[in-house]
Amino acid sequence: MTITITAFERSPDGGMGLARDTRVRWVLEEAGLPYEVRAVSFAAMKEPAHLAIHPFGQIPTYEEGDLVLFESGSIIFHVASQHAGLLPDEPNARARAITWMFAALNSVEPPILDLVTVRLTEGDKPWSKERMPLVANRIRHRLNQLAARLGDAEWLDGAFSAGDLVMVSVLLRTRPSGILNEFPSLAAYVARGEARPAYKRAFAAQLAFNTAQPATG
Amino acid sequence: MTITITAFERSPDGGMGLARDTRVRWVLEEAGLPYEVRAVSFAAMKEPAHLAIHPFGQIPTYEEGDLVLFESGSIIFHVASQHAGLLPDEPNARARAITWMFAALNSVEPPILDLVTVRLTEGDKPWSKERMPLVANRIRHRLNQLAARLGDAEWLDGAFSAGDLVMVSVLLRTRPSGILNEFPSLAAYVARGEARPAYKRAFAAQLAFNTAQPATG
Repeated sequence: MTITITAFERSPDGGMGLARDTRVRWVLEEAGLPYEVRAVSFAAMKEPAHLAIHPFGQIPTYEEGDLVLFESGSIIFHVASQHAGLLPDEPNARARAITWMFAALNSVEPPILDLVTVRLTEGDKPWSKERMPLVANRIRHRLNQLAARLGDAEWLDGAFSAGDLVMVSVLLRTRPSGILNEFPSLAAYVARGEARPAYKRAFAAQLAFNTAQPATG
Repeated sequence: MTITITAFERSPDGGMGLARDTRVRWVLEEAGLPYEVRAVSFAAMKEPAHLAIHPFGQIPTYEEGDLVLFESGSIIFHVASQHAGLLPDEPNARARAITWMFAALNSVEPPILDLVTVRLTEGDKPWSKERMPLVANRIRHRLNQLAARLGDAEWLDGAFSAGDLVMVSVLLRTRPSGILNEFPSLAAYVARGEARPAYKRAFAAQLAFNTAQPATG
């Protein structure tokens, strides 16, 4: 069955690979699964047709026959749980890898997304500039803890897993602000993720997609 | 094997059941699993012994023999995936129920947690009062979308699942602000969750625990 995901018609990041379709492309590349991409404009995202597949009017979504999923975490878990090499077979190791998926999405990404909130939705407010260091420090606090846990390991818990895939994807969003590079071990961890052939294919695909789309929105 | 979870020695909410141990107690009650609770003080949470089991120095954690997990979403998934009645057997329905777990934790809880951030960490800032309506409106935006998807259904996708368990737990956090009651269908959805015998047992257990602990921490 054909897999179809959705992506921004034109990503707000201009092809930096920070939108959430990139992490879904990545897991599909790791699994060796071909997929098609349907572009969704900002206007179409809020229309009933898209809301029927994504109640929050976002991307990415995942369609495969009768199955319709949203939430990148869920899509990544779905693919990872059906293809070897993304989640350990041993039950305890598998549960720990899944833990890192949830940790990335519920404990690490929320403070990072505040950077976007501050800029996009509160950039014109009088407190915006003064508040930014607080937001940045909440991210640093979390990355300090993550760096302490990672130590000098290559990945978070043994071999590369879907947990690393999600964590690297989340951490990538701190690079434009300069915060990622304040943590050399995490920057190196992210670089290891980016060096994976599947990531490179995913990144190139989203870049080509964002370059090829018409400049409407 | 004995299951041991951790909880605040004394929850900041004084026993309202909004801390994340309550959702883990709930899934354990749904699964009919006995468990023990180890209290962790705010000081102990930042010590190496606790950081070894929870890298972000929070609660809850989950210990069962050799298995050590953190992140409530991961713990709930672990329990739900091993006990009947919390995730559908049919693969597509199961993937959709898991989607709601991720949606609750990555798309609904982050704006809700901003309420805590505004109060606890920015309450003394000059912008705190003026910014609160923006934070509240981001929550309302999300709850509007969620209410539209729920419609007049009892649960988010067919029978009660771990997805509902997490979503109800997340939505409960909007009740003290009054926002939940602005959405009658979501308030009723939450009330259906609270009416489940397993939730009642979990709530009573956390209340008794918080009442019984010494007032240190």
